[in-house]
Amino acid sequence: MARIVAKFGGTSVADIERIENVADKVAREVEAGHEMAVVVSAMSGVTNKLVQYCAEVSPLYDAREYDTVVSSGEQVTAGLLAIALQKRGISARSWMGWQIPMKTSDIHGKARIEDINTKEMEKRFAEQEVAVIAGFQGVTRRKRIATLGRGGSDTTAVALAAALKANRCDIYTDVDGVYTTDPRIVKKARKIKKISYDEMLELASLGAKVLQTRSVEMAYKRDVSLQVLSSFEERVGSELPGTLVTKEEDIMEKHVVNGIAFTKDEAKITVFNVPDIPGVAAEVFRPLAKNNINVDMIVQNTSSDGKVVDITFIISEKDADTAVELLEKNKKLKGAKIRTAKDIVKISAVGIGMTSHPGVAQTMFKTLAEKGINMQVIATSEIKISVIIDKEYLELAVRALHDAYGLDKKKKK
Amino acid sequence: MARIVAKFGGTSVADIERIENVADKVAREVEAGHEMAVVVSAMSGVTNKLVQYCAEVSPLYDAREYDTVVSSGEQVTAGLLAIALQKRGISARSWMGWQIPMKTSDIHGKARIEDINTKEMEKRFAEQEVAVIAGFQGVTRRKRIATLGRGGSDTTAVALAAALKANRCDIYTDVDGVYTTDPRIVKKARKIKKISYDEMLELASLGAKVLQTRSVEMAYKRDVSLQVLSSFEERVGSELPGTLVTKEEDIMEKHVVNGIAFTKDEAKITVFNVPDIPGVAAEVFRPLAKNNINVDMIVQNTSSDGKVVDITFIISEKDADTAVELLEKNKKLKGAKIRTAKDIVKISAVGIGMTSHPGVAQTMFKTLAEKGINMQVIATSEIKISVIIDKEYLELAVRALHDAYGLDKKKKK
Repeated sequence: MARIVAKFGGTSVADIERIENVADKVAREVEAGHEMAVVVSAMSGVTNKLVQYCAEVSPLYDAREYDTVVSSGEQVTAGLLAIALQKRGISARSWMGWQIPMKTSDIHGKARIEDINTKEMEKRFAEQEVAVIAGFQGVTRRKRIATLGRGGSDTTAVALAAALKANRCDIYTDVDGVYTTDPRIVKKARKIKKISYDEMLELASLGAKVLQTRSVEMAYKRDVSLQVLSSFEERVGSELPGTLVTKEEDIMEKHVVNGIAFTKDEAKITVFNVPDIPGVAAEVFRPLAKNNINVDMIVQNTSSDGKVVDITFIISEKDADTAVELLEKNKKLKGAKIRTAKDIVKISAVGIGMTSHPGVAQTMFKTLAEKGINMQVIATSEIKISVIIDKEYLELAVRALHDAYGLDKKKKK
Repeated sequence: MARIVAKFGGTSVADIERIENVADKVAREVEAGHEMAVVVSAMSGVTNKLVQYCAEVSPLYDAREYDTVVSSGEQVTAGLLAIALQKRGISARSWMGWQIPMKTSDIHGKARIEDINTKEMEKRFAEQEVAVIAGFQGVTRRKRIATLGRGGSDTTAVALAAALKANRCDIYTDVDGVYTTDPRIVKKARKIKKISYDEMLELASLGAKVLQTRSVEMAYKRDVSLQVLSSFEERVGSELPGTLVTKEEDIMEKHVVNGIAFTKDEAKITVFNVPDIPGVAAEVFRPLAKNNINVDMIVQNTSSDGKVVDITFIISEKDADTAVELLEKNKKLKGAKIRTAKDIVKISAVGIGMTSHPGVAQTMFKTLAEKGINMQVIATSEIKISVIIDKEYLELAVRALHDAYGLDKKKKK
């Protein structure tokens, strides 16, 4: 017997038929003897409609009232799922944030969970009652409803799993797990059975958009094992059909590289002819930081005469025009030439086994060189190597690296 | 300066445009210096959709979960109206039942309001804040959401007006007041400016379906002046454009008859040849009462030889078949003959001036006789006279009586 928090997102509770499907899954877990807390999102499209209502009334809406309006979607799903479970002979009740209570900060629209009182819920677990929790919402000290921001139901689930000391937090979604890379590009991409929090964070922020970064971070900090799995397949969470995100030490079989991630929405900016004097790099980056433009990778080359440097860096494509404008306005960079390249991608090999295998970078460089792909920028960390290449080589590079690291092969013992 | 509770029903908050219209109305009252508590229903169609969801999942739904689902509609409207008011520079906040709190019994789906804590709300009135209250909902001792039953937002408004000691409770709807009779039948029907609770109750239960009987009764008991008015016309509540329902002593100009009401969904049942022995009438009506069939009017005629009686009574048309079945099964009524007439209507003249004017009944009898209309059953009370006639004479009778009582004329001084 385990205690499980299961979270079902919008597509998993899209309509009454899908809610019935969720009830079937929860019923199977209950029949297997598990204690279940089920966190639900709003039915697909509902939250968007409510957000639109608010914006239509006033683009400058009061965040407290916005939260009141928008949180109603989860309330509906929670009530309906409780009814669907009761129909199956399973004792169940819905819980709104204020009923638990799930106390949050009063930063409406993106509140943080501060405290969850699980006493009553746990008492009811002992009476075989399933808890159905409206995700994405909590209550402030002032007794107002606060939402956790879009996608916040994942956060609700992880925080609740931590508070309940649950054995696992199952995140049901419309994909069946985390893959070694995008299966649309590499047909042989495999589903990863187990992955560490670190790796998942690298993969998530690099474009494998399965789990919210914030919820993975919270799971990491609070030591909650997460499973990503599909609500559209037959098997339920306890049969472990998905990808388990857990502590590194719980992963017995460590791959050197566990996945190839990539992002397309990057821009490369090069500032040529920057006088090579102390503090000049700061002149380049200070205005960007001030404008909340996040700089990802930086390379600096000194010219042969040693008098000037070229600085290249990678930022989000959406920030590129603003960044160029800021650089051009900067009088201390007078004489510098600025060039922007948007037709680039970042490809990363991620794996916790990397630190103990120095050949990982070498494999990447060799593989790309063999395909005639030029690496424009390179960056490495403990568990990843990222390179910037021309966009047109994306698929070729991902496939070649996936092969080179043997990601299509079954795990070695 | 007055303290006003204003209630806007489903058609008055049907969509964003209508909600903006409500905000305009409330803004005008606030600018005139009034303290405003605004009770809102769900946007048209929303409650029906939510009810349907519940029924689709399970016809035997848990009433507590039903209440959780269904109450979300009012939550949305309350938040949106608060935003719309803020946009107009008016301080406003939404209140859910549990936030006030508005405490109710735990008979989910038809809960009764037990206690309303208006302390915080009144403090905020002093700070010029408008309270926007989600109607139709309260919270039980167990911290569950409970709804007051369909149309319950009127009850929310009246109960809140009583708790706040409001000067008036304005019920905005899609009709502009209570009329002397149905304007579709009598073109000259006039809007009544002031009417007593008693008269309103008679008119409401007799078919002028403007206000819920329950909320008029509560207003009567708690001494709340109600105004029925239209949200589709220009004038706001404080300009008194509607019909005011208030204490008899507050009505200076008393009409003898204030309105002609009628109902079409009645059936007349006659039991012939009932042995005229004590207790036999009880035999007729006891089984009906047991089956919750309400008997409205009763006439008993003894035959010329004094051995048998004929008993005639009026019930709802929907109960007629059940009633006949019950009577036929009754062995003590053996030998009796039962006849049902469904093509009948009940017409009533209602007015608090009636008691001091004995000629009212005479006017009715004379008017109907002149038109050749036969009265099948007659009943009188302190403030009304009702007659049963053939359905085909309905319009003729209503027009004739409306004229006879001078209801088309302006009030006499």
